[in-house]
Amino acid sequence: MKIQKQIDVKAYKPSGFIGDYRRLVKETVIPYQYSILKDELPDTEKSHVYANFVNAGRALRGEDTADGFYGMVFQDSDAAKWIEAAAYALAAEKDDLLEKKVDDFIDVIAGAQDEDGYLDTYFTIKDREKRWTNLLEAHELYCAGHFFEAGCAYYEATGKRKLLDVCEKLADHIYKHFITEGNGGYPGHPEAELALMKMYRLTGKKKYLELAGHFINTRGVDADFYRKEKERRNWQVWGNDASDGAYQQSDRPVREQKDATGHAVRAVYLYTGMADYASEKSDAELYKACRTLWDSITKRRMYVTGGIGSTVHGEAFSVDYDLPSDSAYAETCASCGLMFFASRMLENEVKSEYADVMENAFYNTVLAGMQLDGKRFFYVNPLEVNPGISGVAAVYRHDLPERPKWYGCACCPPNVARVIESFGKYAYGENADTLFCHLFAAGEVKSLCGLNLVCETGYPYELGVKYRVSGKGKFAVRIPGWSRNNIIKRNGESFKPEIKDGYAYFEIDGADEIDLSFDDEPYYVFANPKIPRLTGQACLKRGPLVYCFEGADNDGYVSDLVLAKDGKTVYESINIEKYSTYAIDVEAGKQFSKGDPYSIIFPEIKPYKARAIPYYCWGNRGINQMRVWLPVMK
Amino acid sequence: MKIQKQIDVKAYKPSGFIGDYRRLVKETVIPYQYSILKDELPDTEKSHVYANFVNAGRALRGEDTADGFYGMVFQDSDAAKWIEAAAYALAAEKDDLLEKKVDDFIDVIAGAQDEDGYLDTYFTIKDREKRWTNLLEAHELYCAGHFFEAGCAYYEATGKRKLLDVCEKLADHIYKHFITEGNGGYPGHPEAELALMKMYRLTGKKKYLELAGHFINTRGVDADFYRKEKERRNWQVWGNDASDGAYQQSDRPVREQKDATGHAVRAVYLYTGMADYASEKSDAELYKACRTLWDSITKRRMYVTGGIGSTVHGEAFSVDYDLPSDSAYAETCASCGLMFFASRMLENEVKSEYADVMENAFYNTVLAGMQLDGKRFFYVNPLEVNPGISGVAAVYRHDLPERPKWYGCACCPPNVARVIESFGKYAYGENADTLFCHLFAAGEVKSLCGLNLVCETGYPYELGVKYRVSGKGKFAVRIPGWSRNNIIKRNGESFKPEIKDGYAYFEIDGADEIDLSFDDEPYYVFANPKIPRLTGQACLKRGPLVYCFEGADNDGYVSDLVLAKDGKTVYESINIEKYSTYAIDVEAGKQFSKGDPYSIIFPEIKPYKARAIPYYCWGNRGINQMRVWLPVMK
Repeated sequence: MKIQKQIDVKAYKPSGFIGDYRRLVKETVIPYQYSILKDELPDTEKSHVYANFVNAGRALRGEDTADGFYGMVFQDSDAAKWIEAAAYALAAEKDDLLEKKVDDFIDVIAGAQDEDGYLDTYFTIKDREKRWTNLLEAHELYCAGHFFEAGCAYYEATGKRKLLDVCEKLADHIYKHFITEGNGGYPGHPEAELALMKMYRLTGKKKYLELAGHFINTRGVDADFYRKEKERRNWQVWGNDASDGAYQQSDRPVREQKDATGHAVRAVYLYTGMADYASEKSDAELYKACRTLWDSITKRRMYVTGGIGSTVHGEAFSVDYDLPSDSAYAETCASCGLMFFASRMLENEVKSEYADVMENAFYNTVLAGMQLDGKRFFYVNPLEVNPGISGVAAVYRHDLPERPKWYGCACCPPNVARVIESFGKYAYGENADTLFCHLFAAGEVKSLCGLNLVCETGYPYELGVKYRVSGKGKFAVRIPGWSRNNIIKRNGESFKPEIKDGYAYFEIDGADEIDLSFDDEPYYVFANPKIPRLTGQACLKRGPLVYCFEGADNDGYVSDLVLAKDGKTVYESINIEKYSTYAIDVEAGKQFSKGDPYSIIFPEIKPYKARAIPYYCWGNRGINQMRVWLPVMK
Repeated sequence: MKIQKQIDVKAYKPSGFIGDYRRLVKETVIPYQYSILKDELPDTEKSHVYANFVNAGRALRGEDTADGFYGMVFQDSDAAKWIEAAAYALAAEKDDLLEKKVDDFIDVIAGAQDEDGYLDTYFTIKDREKRWTNLLEAHELYCAGHFFEAGCAYYEATGKRKLLDVCEKLADHIYKHFITEGNGGYPGHPEAELALMKMYRLTGKKKYLELAGHFINTRGVDADFYRKEKERRNWQVWGNDASDGAYQQSDRPVREQKDATGHAVRAVYLYTGMADYASEKSDAELYKACRTLWDSITKRRMYVTGGIGSTVHGEAFSVDYDLPSDSAYAETCASCGLMFFASRMLENEVKSEYADVMENAFYNTVLAGMQLDGKRFFYVNPLEVNPGISGVAAVYRHDLPERPKWYGCACCPPNVARVIESFGKYAYGENADTLFCHLFAAGEVKSLCGLNLVCETGYPYELGVKYRVSGKGKFAVRIPGWSRNNIIKRNGESFKPEIKDGYAYFEIDGADEIDLSFDDEPYYVFANPKIPRLTGQACLKRGPLVYCFEGADNDGYVSDLVLAKDGKTVYESINIEKYSTYAIDVEAGKQFSKGDPYSIIFPEIKPYKARAIPYYCWGNRGINQMRVWLPVMK
C-alpha cells in the first residue's frame, strides 16, 4: 500500500516561480520542440521523428517508406516525451491549437502501430524480423515506456483515450511476448517498469502491474542474459559490452544490488520503477534494496547540485566519492530521473530527505539544463568551467561552456519540459486523509483527500511560504533539511506542530492559514574529505539554490577567487539579460600570483567582493569561467 | 657552434646519491631487463626482443623464422636502450660478464641487418615489401635512432666498433632512401634526429648532420604528408589519425610551431634534435623556435614535478594550464625526454633555467618512475592517488597506485636506466676553456678543457656542495633557481664570483676549493591561478625535491590534510623499507567532517603533524593515498 501518492496533474494550478517556468515551457519549449520533431526549423539537426511515424504507417500498409527511418534507435521517444509535456501543459491551460497538434500527432502514431500491437518505427521501417532480438541496445521497451507515460498523461489531461488505447494494445503485446509466450529478458534501458506502473494505476489492469514486476524481479536473475542474447543475434546498434552486468544494472537480482552503477539515467529509471512497485505491493525487501541504492547515490555519488552520473564514460555512475567538478557528466536527464526516484521513495515513506534531494536536483541541475530563455539546453552539467580547457581538452570535451541549441540525441530538453509542466506531481502528494507539500510551489491545489489550499510564496528566493488551507484532514509540510531555524505560525500565532521525519503535521478542520519562514541567510556547504576533489573548498547556497561564481561578475576570472570562511554576504536583486534573479555578494579574496606557472612566493590575496549567482542561471552571458566550489583560504 | 657540450661518458666517476643509484641500475635493473629481453623470467609478459633478432637473421638467410616476430612494432628499441644503458654502466665500471652479454647481443643484431643496411626485425620477419611505407606508425626511424644511440654509447664506453658499424651501415641506408633517392617523409616518432646528431659528432660524417637537418627542416613543410602516406598504403599498425597534424608535431614547419602539442615523448625527442642541430649550425631561428616550445612546456604545460604530457588521450600534451594531479599522465619517458631537451638547450645558451628544469624532472618524475629497489616501474606519474578511484574509475584508470613489474610496451624502464647510468652527461658540460656543473653530482670529473674536479655532496638531501678543482680554466656552477640565499666560499673564504644567467663563474689556475651552500629550509610552491586545479593549494619542496604526503605516514589518509601557510617544519631521517631518506614533518591540520557527503557545518580541523616524503619515494609501501598538492586552509 502506498503511504501517499502524487496528486493528479490537474489538481495543481501553478503561479509564481513555477508558474513562470511553466509558461516559458508552454510558450517557448513546446512549440520549439514541435518544430524540431516535424523538421520545420532551418539550420537545425534533422530530427525526422514525425516522418518516422508517417513512414512506419506506410510500411504497415505495404507502401513505399519514402525516406525511411532516420535518427537514434530510440527516436520515437522524443515524440512521446513531447506529447507528455504538451499534455501537462494542456492540463494547466486550455489551448485548442496545441491540442489539435497533439491529436494529429497521435493519429500518425496510431497509424504506425502494427496490428499485433507492436509500435516502434525503427523496426517497423527497417526490419520487422529483428523485433525483440536486442533488448540490450534497441530500446523498444524504453520507447514503449515513454508512450505509456504520454498516453496516461494525455488521458489525465484531456480525457481522450486514443493514445491510451494505443498504449494498452502495445502493453498487451509486450505482456504476450514476455509473459504469455515466456520469452526471457528485461529492458536494456529501464523505463517500461515505471511507465507500466502508471498504466496499471490509470487502467486498474493487474497485468500491467504483473509485467512491471516481471521486469523488475527477473532482472539480473539470469545475469548472463544480455551476453547470451548477443550471441543469438547477428546485429548490433552500438556494440555495447553485453558482459558488463554492473553497467546494465543486471549483474545480480535487483534486490541484491548495493551500489548505484552504470548508466545513470537507466539506473534511476529502474530504481523509480522498483520503488513504485515496492510501495504498491508493500514489498519491504524491495524497498530496502531501493533504500540501499538511494544511500549509494545520495551519500557517495551525488554532486552538491543534485547531479548524478559523474563520468562521461558510459554516461555513468563512477566509484564512490569520484565527483569531479570540471569533468563532470551529471546529465540533466539523470537528475530528472533522480526526482522520479525520490518521488516514488516518498510513496514508501514520507521522509524529508527524499524531498530534499528532489528539490535540490530540480532547482539546480534540472533547471540549469535549460537556458533562461528556454531556447538552449545542457545535457552535461559541470560544476566548473574553464574556457580553453572545458569543451576542448579530451577529458572535458563534453563539458561545454555554453548551452547548444539541440542535439541529435534529444533526450534532455523534453525531460526538463515534462518535469516543469508536471511540477505539481512532485510538489504535492496525498492519501486518504492527508495532503502533503513536499516542495514549495505557489498556486492552488484541489486534493482528493478533502483539503484544498492556496500557496503564496516567492520561493526559491523568498524563503517564507503561506498556505491557506481549507477543508477537513491532515496537512503535512516538509521542513527543508538546509533550514536550521524555522518559524511556524498558524493563523498568525506561533505554533508547534507535530514534526515527524522532517514533516510538520497540522490537523485542519475548516480554514487555516499556515505560515512557514525558513532560514534565509546564505550558507556554505563543505564536503566530506572522502571526496578528494573538494577538500579545502566550500560551496555557497541560499535556501535550495546552489550558487556559483562566473567570470562575467568577477572581472573575467573566478579561478583566482578564494573564500573567507566568515566573509559577509549581501543578497541583491539583479538581472541576467531579461531575467530577474538574486545575486549574493561575498567578502572574498582575489589571488595575484606572478608564478609562471609556479612560484615560491605566497600569492598576494587582495580583498575582493565576489559575486555569486544561482547555479541554474549560469552560462547565459557568453563563454566565461564558472565555479561552484571555491577554496577557503582566508 | 655549440656553447658547450656534454662531457664524455667516461669523464665522470659517480659517487654519493648518483653513485648509489647507478649501482642499483647496474646490479638490479640491467640484469633484470636482460632476462626480460631474453624471455628468461617466468611469470612475466613475453618480450621476445632477442628472439626477434635471431628470427630476423634466419629470415635473411632464407631459413624458417621459427616463432616469427612478437611484440610492439618498435620492440627492437628495447634492445638498443638496454645496450645503451649497459654501455654506460661499463664505462663506469668494468664487467667482463656484462660486456660479453652485450657483445653476444650485438652479434645477433648484426646478423639481423639486411645486406643493404636495413635493420628492423618487424619488417624483416613479417614483410620486407612494406619497409618505409608507414613512417607515421611503424617507427623504423625511431628504432634506428635507438640503435644509433646504443652504437655511439658502446663505442664511447668500450672502443668496440661492431655496433657502430651496423649503425653507420643503417644510417647510410636511410640517407640513401631519404636523400639520395629523394623519398619524402619524416619520423612518425622523432628520435632519429637527436641520434643522428650523436652519430655525426662521433664519426664526423657530415651526411649524418645533413640527414638530421633534413628530417627537422622538412617536417610539417608538407603538412599533409602522413595523410597522403596513409592513402598510399593499404595497411596500418594502430590506425592513427593521419590528419591530426598537431598531434604528430607536423601541422606546420617546426620553425613555426608555437605550442608543445601531441604525444609528449615524441615532442621532446623532436625538440631535442632541433636544439642540438640549432647549436651545431648556429641556427638562431631554429633555436628561437626551440625557445618558444620550451616556454610552452615549462611555463604552461608542466607539472611541478617536471612531468609533462598531462593527458592519457594520446599520451599527450593537453591545452595550457590543464594540469590535473589525479588524472595525470606525465609519462616517465617524457620527463627523460625533457632532460634531453634541456641538456641540448644548454648547448645553445648556458642559462640556469634549463638546468633547473632538468634537475626537477630528474629528481622527481624520472626517479619516481622506478621503485626504490629497482624492480618495478611507473609509466604514469600522478601527483595524487586515491585508492578506490585511481586505477579504477575510467578517467584515472592509467593512474596506478603501485608500480607494476613490467609492461608489454617497455619504453620507460630502460629510459630511466640509461639516464641514471649517463647522469654525468647531464650534470657536467665543457667547452674549450670552461667546465660546467649543471647538476650537483658527487664524484670525479676529468674534462678535456684542462680542469679536473672532485665533487663532494650529500645532494639532494645535503644542500652544500664542495668542489676541489685543479688545472687551468674557467669553472662554472649553476646556482639553482629555488635557492634564494647562497653562501659561496673559495678556499674557505667568502667569495663573490661573477654570476651570469644563473651560473657562478670562477677562474681556476692551480687548485681551488669551492664551497656552495644553498637554502636548506623546506619551502612551499604555489601555482598561478591560471591552473584551475591548483588554486588554494601548496606543494612542499626542499632543495630540488618535491615532497608528497602518503597515507602510510598520516593515519591512512591524506585527502583530509590541510596545510597552514606558516606551519613549522622538521626535517628528519627515516627509512622507507630499507631505503634511507628524509621526511619533513609539518604543522598542519586534519579535517573531520560528519557530512555525508555534504554538510553546512565548517569541518573541524584538528592540529596535526603531517609527514611528507620525497615524491620519488612514494608508492613503496603498498597502496595508499598520496598527494603532492594540499589545500592551504589555516
